[in-house]
Amino acid sequence: MSIAKTPRPPYYAVIFSNYLSSDVDGYTETAERMLELAAEQPGFLGFESVRDGMGITVSYWRDLEAIKLWKANSEHQVAQKTGKEKWYSQFVTRIAKVERDYSLGLDEQADFK
Amino acid sequence: MSIAKTPRPPYYAVIFSNYLSSDVDGYTETAERMLELAAEQPGFLGFESVRDGMGITVSYWRDLEAIKLWKANSEHQVAQKTGKEKWYSQFVTRIAKVERDYSLGLDEQADFK
Repeated sequence: MSIAKTPRPPYYAVIFSNYLSSDVDGYTETAERMLELAAEQPGFLGFESVRDGMGITVSYWRDLEAIKLWKANSEHQVAQKTGKEKWYSQFVTRIAKVERDYSLGLDEQADFK
Repeated sequence: MSIAKTPRPPYYAVIFSNYLSSDVDGYTETAERMLELAAEQPGFLGFESVRDGMGITVSYWRDLEAIKLWKANSEHQVAQKTGKEKWYSQFVTRIAKVERDYSLGLDEQADFK
């Protein structure tokens, strides 16, 4: 995992805070596939994901339209349904517009920033 | 750790993604003290924090003014300086306005939402 190198704000963050249930059959494969698929979507800017009991995954997107299209992706919809019914005991998804950011120790990206 | 029970949007999130350096002397005590101190600030709404190599801490605030006051808190400023100079090898702080959220499995908070 590494810290996502995002462009200058504004852009969007989807903060997904969650706990898994006891029934995680198929979860890991699907989670990996979803990250792979998300990365192919227009407007995807990167993601960060950490779990230690609670999981926090933050994905970054160009705009709300990109988030909407990703949410509506048919393969993602199947995963979301299974997630709600089976894999997660609790989650909150927050959609937030990043207005400012500042960093330490990341390479400046002349091609990006 | 538990998922923060935040009020209805809009509110603000500060997403702090980070890696620790090899010199973490004093880090744990200060991190705990900062969370205690943050919780006393006006406009503080909650936080979530996970580390597994990379750390992601998300704190939630009523508005930008609350974030600004917390950033300017004198004890917090000392901690921020030590963090930059010593504890963190990399971080990105992102300030984001939460526009929408949805959840599964959290108690509805009639007094809050």
